[in-house]
Amino acid sequence: MTEKIPEDLLDLVERPLFASVGTIRPNSTVQVNPMWFVYDGEMVRLTHNRTRAKYRNLQLNPSMCLLIVDPDNPIRYLEIRGRLVETTPDPEGEFFVKLAGRYGMQDAPPPPDKEDRVVLVMSIDRTTRFHG
Amino acid sequence: MTEKIPEDLLDLVERPLFASVGTIRPNSTVQVNPMWFVYDGEMVRLTHNRTRAKYRNLQLNPSMCLLIVDPDNPIRYLEIRGRLVETTPDPEGEFFVKLAGRYGMQDAPPPPDKEDRVVLVMSIDRTTRFHG
Repeated sequence: MTEKIPEDLLDLVERPLFASVGTIRPNSTVQVNPMWFVYDGEMVRLTHNRTRAKYRNLQLNPSMCLLIVDPDNPIRYLEIRGRLVETTPDPEGEFFVKLAGRYGMQDAPPPPDKEDRVVLVMSIDRTTRFHG
Repeated sequence: MTEKIPEDLLDLVERPLFASVGTIRPNSTVQVNPMWFVYDGEMVRLTHNRTRAKYRNLQLNPSMCLLIVDPDNPIRYLEIRGRLVETTPDPEGEFFVKLAGRYGMQDAPPPPDKEDRVVLVMSIDRTTRFHG
């Protein structure tokens, strides 16, 4: 079941903000890293590299959580919980370049690690927000 | 074993920045929430409420991870991995009020939920940073 992003917080997924992405390591400890992302109205997509720890974490436990905070007002935030539902190779770094553009790096070259680049596709199972 | 915060990133724990705090839920999914914190040179302390989900998470799995990002330059960030090592009651909300002051709310009153307020004390087992 896919949940929608609340209308009044849509700007948090539309603006080029970094997400704090939580994953679970094989030893059942938690890891949080900043990542670029894009939301297409249904899924979240992130660029990653299949040689990194987070990739290995997600093969064993697909649970992911994104926290996006409004830098102008930290009490406005959105937590998106979901799962890795698909991993697509990005061997030319095309998706990386598109995301770099979204984050203000126009005409970025393909990344040096493009052969190992992948697109992580994440479902949106639940969203939570500040409820003071 | 306690690890120290790298000297050149000390400002990230000294400034009143929100941390993105990862914990693991009883069903082995991950949760990330914004939290206030303070660092005393050895441990991280956070204010929390023992009726909340995160508190229950930490009773079952003490793993915690804080991500702190420089709002002026998101590539400067610090990830702190550790464990909940102690929980102290804060029945007068004294620690809450101290933290509120650190985050710009001078002379805040004790919180309405003060009877359930606790101080979470977190060890620093490992720090990671951007290595582009």
